[in-house]
Amino acid sequence: MAVYTDVAAEELAAFLAGYDIGELLSYKGIAEGVENSNFLVHTSRGYYILTLYEKRVATGDLPFFLGLMEHLSARGLTCPQPVKNRAGAALGMVAGRPAAVITFLDGMWIRRPSAGHCAALGEALARLHLAGADFPLKRRNALSVDGWRPLHEACGARANEVQLDLGGFVARELDVLERSWPRDLPQGVIHADLFPDNVFFLGDKLSGLIDFYFACTDAFAYDVAICLNAWCFEQDHSYNVTKGRALLSAYARLRPLTGAEQEVFPLLARGAALRFLLTRLVDWLNVPPGALVKPKDPLEYVRKLRFHQTASTRDYGIAA
Amino acid sequence: MAVYTDVAAEELAAFLAGYDIGELLSYKGIAEGVENSNFLVHTSRGYYILTLYEKRVATGDLPFFLGLMEHLSARGLTCPQPVKNRAGAALGMVAGRPAAVITFLDGMWIRRPSAGHCAALGEALARLHLAGADFPLKRRNALSVDGWRPLHEACGARANEVQLDLGGFVARELDVLERSWPRDLPQGVIHADLFPDNVFFLGDKLSGLIDFYFACTDAFAYDVAICLNAWCFEQDHSYNVTKGRALLSAYARLRPLTGAEQEVFPLLARGAALRFLLTRLVDWLNVPPGALVKPKDPLEYVRKLRFHQTASTRDYGIAA
Repeated sequence: MAVYTDVAAEELAAFLAGYDIGELLSYKGIAEGVENSNFLVHTSRGYYILTLYEKRVATGDLPFFLGLMEHLSARGLTCPQPVKNRAGAALGMVAGRPAAVITFLDGMWIRRPSAGHCAALGEALARLHLAGADFPLKRRNALSVDGWRPLHEACGARANEVQLDLGGFVARELDVLERSWPRDLPQGVIHADLFPDNVFFLGDKLSGLIDFYFACTDAFAYDVAICLNAWCFEQDHSYNVTKGRALLSAYARLRPLTGAEQEVFPLLARGAALRFLLTRLVDWLNVPPGALVKPKDPLEYVRKLRFHQTASTRDYGIAA
Repeated sequence: MAVYTDVAAEELAAFLAGYDIGELLSYKGIAEGVENSNFLVHTSRGYYILTLYEKRVATGDLPFFLGLMEHLSARGLTCPQPVKNRAGAALGMVAGRPAAVITFLDGMWIRRPSAGHCAALGEALARLHLAGADFPLKRRNALSVDGWRPLHEACGARANEVQLDLGGFVARELDVLERSWPRDLPQGVIHADLFPDNVFFLGDKLSGLIDFYFACTDAFAYDVAICLNAWCFEQDHSYNVTKGRALLSAYARLRPLTGAEQEVFPLLARGAALRFLLTRLVDWLNVPPGALVKPKDPLEYVRKLRFHQTASTRDYGIAA
């Protein structure tokens, strides 16, 4: 949930006068995204999302994010699209923040995805990877292997407050991953945060992807591993091979994994688990006691990581 | 900002199947109301608000609130209207909470009201009081004079942490108000919380009133005093007599204040200030340090109260 910045009606009306989207009728702060302030805006032309980019998002990255949404949308992927103002710009300023008007996307995210949902996600992820192939901008993944040790060091000994020897567990895993992280896999635009709450469905049909604010240039198979971690484990954190197979085979129908990608998949899945373990751990240790937003449980990703440490490619249900 | 309860898409779709409002297309938690969870729901028929009543709202009061909105709406007041389900009920259950579907109201609240906005508010308040005259249900005002001492006692000596001798200031004021609080003024349905964020405008035209969850049966003039406190003071907490006169005279054109109401108005304004001073103080003292929702400043109401302590009826701009 996130509305960090309030916007006065007069100010918003003045901002929207720069767009060809009709007259402002109402706007409401919405509980979506954790990095930015989001408003659902109703005008005489329809509904839009207004996003105010808060300081956690680097202004220099905004052309990448907005350009990517436009690029993917032009290639038939259903995702929110930046609306350009009368001067042709997708980015403006409201309440002292960079701001963009984005098209409103219908659909709902699935709290407990089935194997069918996982298959739909796998197909959409492959489409995203293929559609992004000719996107000209690049963005380094700040949350890949080189970014993990600084996060680990930021937690320091306090990791052990969360679980006995969690600091040591992370340190040992980091040593392995830094030593063996694959650097030459097929790369391109990845979403890097395609959790269920960023994937909309209407009925059983996937209707769109949202929240491209972690998107970057990295290995496709790493994105697959992130999704597998987010979609294919049960409430008790056990791996559901039926869901995994559904995701992986739907993905592979459009973009088959190379031999190298298959071979290092367990390692990628370990890295993907460590990345979310670490960012959750940092958030967990830095949320003031009693805050209204409950941080996500880092230990969920400890359990996933343990599974990957002993898994082989075959265990995921990857078709031979 | 408030979304306390998450609702799964499947559960919401099943709930809405009981209503004749089309198929669920999307829903988003919105940052509106502090007592309940609110979602903006899009169906194939249009947009609606879904409110889940959290434990701070007494279930027994819901028929009063929902019935009142329906009553006022039927008498031409623009306010959200409960949508009845196929069984004819305005109240259902979602995610273990009492829940209602309410019509969506366009309009925006004014961050810095002008005298013109105050006049529009005065007129709307009088219309509300007149339209509520034949509403058959009653609800005691739990936050009138009898409710203040318990709030004061709940703060105890900690009031003095907020401002030097604030506890003594409140105690002395309570003694005065309990001794002299008028009990025989004209009564009826009052809104009791008609702050700017509960009043929508489209351009300069008042387009609707929302959030009836403090509405109760009490003195009309007390409701006027609450509004005067909320609308007619400047950022520096000084009283703006132009705004006050605009509010009061617009109100009086539809419902003239009686001689008795005019005479005790300063006392009512003191009580109205003390009520918000006390509830804000309780919230202030009970919000955990670092929480994401910033409590409202109780001292704003100390300054308003000091103004009222030395004011006479004439000082408000009430027409003789």
